[in-house]
Amino acid sequence: MNETPEIRGLFWDGEALRFLEQTFLPLEEKTIRTQDWRVIVDAVKRLAIRGAPAIGVAGAFAAVLALRESNGDHEKWLRCLEDIEYARPTAVNLSRAVQRLREAAALAGNDRPEVVVTAEAERIAREDEMMCEAIAENGLELIPEGAVALTHCNTGALVTYGIGTALGVLRRAFERGMLEHVYACEARPLGQGARLTMWELAKLNIPATLLCDSAVGRLMQEDRIDLVIVGADRIAANGDTANKIGTLNLAVLSEHFSVPFYVAAPSTTFDCSLPDGRGIPIEYRDPAEIIRCGDRPFAFAGSTCFNPAFDVTPGSHISAFIREDGVFFPPFDFAGDPC
Amino acid sequence: MNETPEIRGLFWDGEALRFLEQTFLPLEEKTIRTQDWRVIVDAVKRLAIRGAPAIGVAGAFAAVLALRESNGDHEKWLRCLEDIEYARPTAVNLSRAVQRLREAAALAGNDRPEVVVTAEAERIAREDEMMCEAIAENGLELIPEGAVALTHCNTGALVTYGIGTALGVLRRAFERGMLEHVYACEARPLGQGARLTMWELAKLNIPATLLCDSAVGRLMQEDRIDLVIVGADRIAANGDTANKIGTLNLAVLSEHFSVPFYVAAPSTTFDCSLPDGRGIPIEYRDPAEIIRCGDRPFAFAGSTCFNPAFDVTPGSHISAFIREDGVFFPPFDFAGDPC
Repeated sequence: MNETPEIRGLFWDGEALRFLEQTFLPLEEKTIRTQDWRVIVDAVKRLAIRGAPAIGVAGAFAAVLALRESNGDHEKWLRCLEDIEYARPTAVNLSRAVQRLREAAALAGNDRPEVVVTAEAERIAREDEMMCEAIAENGLELIPEGAVALTHCNTGALVTYGIGTALGVLRRAFERGMLEHVYACEARPLGQGARLTMWELAKLNIPATLLCDSAVGRLMQEDRIDLVIVGADRIAANGDTANKIGTLNLAVLSEHFSVPFYVAAPSTTFDCSLPDGRGIPIEYRDPAEIIRCGDRPFAFAGSTCFNPAFDVTPGSHISAFIREDGVFFPPFDFAGDPC
Repeated sequence: MNETPEIRGLFWDGEALRFLEQTFLPLEEKTIRTQDWRVIVDAVKRLAIRGAPAIGVAGAFAAVLALRESNGDHEKWLRCLEDIEYARPTAVNLSRAVQRLREAAALAGNDRPEVVVTAEAERIAREDEMMCEAIAENGLELIPEGAVALTHCNTGALVTYGIGTALGVLRRAFERGMLEHVYACEARPLGQGARLTMWELAKLNIPATLLCDSAVGRLMQEDRIDLVIVGADRIAANGDTANKIGTLNLAVLSEHFSVPFYVAAPSTTFDCSLPDGRGIPIEYRDPAEIIRCGDRPFAFAGSTCFNPAFDVTPGSHISAFIREDGVFFPPFDFAGDPC
């Protein structure tokens, strides 16, 4: 296995949390080291730290730092936890992580709660790291020799405590000499592919090419792609998958051009309480994200905009799911999963 | 028929050519009036005047102005014509227009060549205007009552001497109360939809919504669209259609979601010398168009880019062609057209 340079969106050094200030990327690589839980909460709110798994881990260490600051004042700590938990209300990982620390502290009682809570936070981070490795390992069986892959949005080291989900699979495949090239979609409006994935692939020395979301059909028409691999935000029991807007376009085009379409996501992304994708709420975001590009006007300023953050790809378009506990082929039925 | 405000990318007032400086749109609406043919050539080169039909008409009036300037020095005029003809080498309309004026002048000889050449240039402009009207008239039969249409790139008054092709159909349909709403794709990388089509639709008071190219699948999934209508750059005898990058995505998605997909283009866009789309050369453009958005860095600066300006939609995905001489349904066979 070749050595690849380390990229970490988050790193806990035992005393403080270090994180990459993602709002500056790719123009500037700035790492912030903090022992102040408020700085972490602010970073989560500002999307300087983003991605559900990363937010959960960051929240856990914010809780550890808040406990150290509270000097045994348990009520004060519990109030801090609320601030942490609601930094972003929709990320289930955040409240789940905070809840685990709350329970760990309750079990510890007065018996060195700081040690117990820190250990639990480190466990959350390590679980995330191992989940990424297991997904990558499982995904390798789907990568042909000399593969050329297309991916969407940003699913690597910036959004997890490990190597990522879809991008983690590609990274390990590249290190084993199986992957030749990655095409990354721009992912308008916010350009996570253009800004973050292209930066991350360059850091990993993986040969990569950027394209506009509009050019995917042409790319497949030229027969340049062996597989598509993406992450997911929420997956229903029948495999219907909510992910970054543009994923559905890729899935329909993949089917048309007979390109396998894979989703890499941890089992925690599966929501077996939903029989299908119709129950997944779609967030519609600020028109300014489209009217501006970066911080500058791009479109006609008076435009009304249709700006869903996600779309839902029917499970019937998905060739396989790659999870930490294995690869799942159609027909999909995750209704038996623990919810 | 309701009155709609006039938008003209180009207008010949008998003495001078007036044109909208498109590079400033939509931030600034600046009309330039010029009697200097060099200003027109420069505008064509800078894409201040763009779109094959508009370029042809602009070139014709540049030739008229050059003739007036040459004061009877025929050799000097012929040299000017070369500069005009090669302002953009790939636009066949430009050389075709200049050739018509050259031939008109040759026929006129010393018998008032300026009058004859001006009349021929005005004829070229009028033909373009009437072609647009005929396309719009023919297209109406495909528009259901209360239609919601999706379009791509910019195909209206800015790229022709008339009301445009695809956008012309929508404009006349709206004036007759048949069209309810237009969705316009951004059309990355250069954003002709976001910048120009949204501006033009606002001018025409047509209710319109902008979306990223990545969101088309979601839009169709929500069942918001009754038809897709686009223009074309070059069409092969079997109906394979080269158009702005992203058109193929729309066509494949339209087929998947059972949305009719129409192409509006004059008969001069059909190239019956090509049996199918494989013979259409695809222009690959500067990566900077993707790396920057407008004039600002957007993507990771070191990115390699896949940036085709066009894609080729197979004729088999097209529900009908709308031309000035009628509506054509599958199976398509334009091999008998005059080349």
